[in-house]
Amino acid sequence: MRYGVFGTGTVGLTISNRLAELGHEVMIGTRESLKSGDRLKSKNEAVKVGTFADAAAFGEVLSNATNGAGSVEALKRAGEANLNSKVLLDISNPLDFSKGMPPMLFAMNTDSLGEEIQRTFPNLKVVKSLNTVTAAIMVNPVDVADGDQHVFVSGNDSGAKETVTGILKGFGWIHILELGDITTARGPEMYRPIWLRMWGALGTGMSNIKIMK
Amino acid sequence: MRYGVFGTGTVGLTISNRLAELGHEVMIGTRESLKSGDRLKSKNEAVKVGTFADAAAFGEVLSNATNGAGSVEALKRAGEANLNSKVLLDISNPLDFSKGMPPMLFAMNTDSLGEEIQRTFPNLKVVKSLNTVTAAIMVNPVDVADGDQHVFVSGNDSGAKETVTGILKGFGWIHILELGDITTARGPEMYRPIWLRMWGALGTGMSNIKIMK
Repeated sequence: MRYGVFGTGTVGLTISNRLAELGHEVMIGTRESLKSGDRLKSKNEAVKVGTFADAAAFGEVLSNATNGAGSVEALKRAGEANLNSKVLLDISNPLDFSKGMPPMLFAMNTDSLGEEIQRTFPNLKVVKSLNTVTAAIMVNPVDVADGDQHVFVSGNDSGAKETVTGILKGFGWIHILELGDITTARGPEMYRPIWLRMWGALGTGMSNIKIMK
Repeated sequence: MRYGVFGTGTVGLTISNRLAELGHEVMIGTRESLKSGDRLKSKNEAVKVGTFADAAAFGEVLSNATNGAGSVEALKRAGEANLNSKVLLDISNPLDFSKGMPPMLFAMNTDSLGEEIQRTFPNLKVVKSLNTVTAAIMVNPVDVADGDQHVFVSGNDSGAKETVTGILKGFGWIHILELGDITTARGPEMYRPIWLRMWGALGTGMSNIKIMK
């Protein structure tokens, strides 16, 4: 499978490298000039680099790992024709750092960033997932409690959710809870404030939650 | 110990009955006329009934189990002199049902209901806890996964947090994570949207999260 990943921060690089490690063809998309790409130094040789539009055109499946505040703009640069009706694994969080740390959320309660992306690109099949854990856990859940922990999936399209579930299983996820349509992304996005406080109290982001019944 | 519990809904009755069962003296406080108290039928014989002010004066330790939208008003009726500098175990959530189900939050991001109560009654020692689980689990955590799951504590006063932690242990809680001062209540309160979606997906509220490291 060919993947296009938007965003060259820790999440974008981590996702891209892991997909390449699993044998997929990957292009990471960036807004920056390719020559200035210091932040891409840690990328895997197997990961191609292009613009947002290049990555969108390249990928059969896409992933949004851009900063939440810039996600809609990044996807507009990718271009609706390139995005088309592809599956988008949306990992972004609507974080607002304008008031310092801890960050606030700029979408919540009556909306989510996942929904905003879905509204802006109605043909895109947006699936929110992985935004509740730190990058290292996203792609190697086995590193925490041997993978005995949960990740969530929200989206309108059943087939797209199956595609994303397949990616998650490829990363090593065992417990995947499908919450419902894209409006349920409000839950995982608004989980961020307790996640930040747990990180503070535990002194590590290498933790996650398991649903106990 | 003598407890004053505000609120005669499921949470107030459940907390009151359990405290009485554990051998404590309990008065439940209500805004309603005592003669009209149909909603109190299920109360334990050992639980006294009074006004908010009666319960506040009676309790050495207090608990707010009122509807979040009415919590500040209920505490004003209890009276600042009766609340004094007592410990308040605040179980409320800032739920706004005005737009139907699922409820929205009326405090979040830059504030929490726990903080609003603390600001309104600066002498009261507010400790937010138990608001992340359903009433039955609050008082009998052993009923889910033999108690192998987490509850959170937020508050400004160390002694008050110790008092609340003692109550939680009395109920059977094993894993208690102290998040920090009362501003950290934003985390557990904003957890409600994902909790509601998990309930929907799981088909039961008899579940909770365990932090895995």
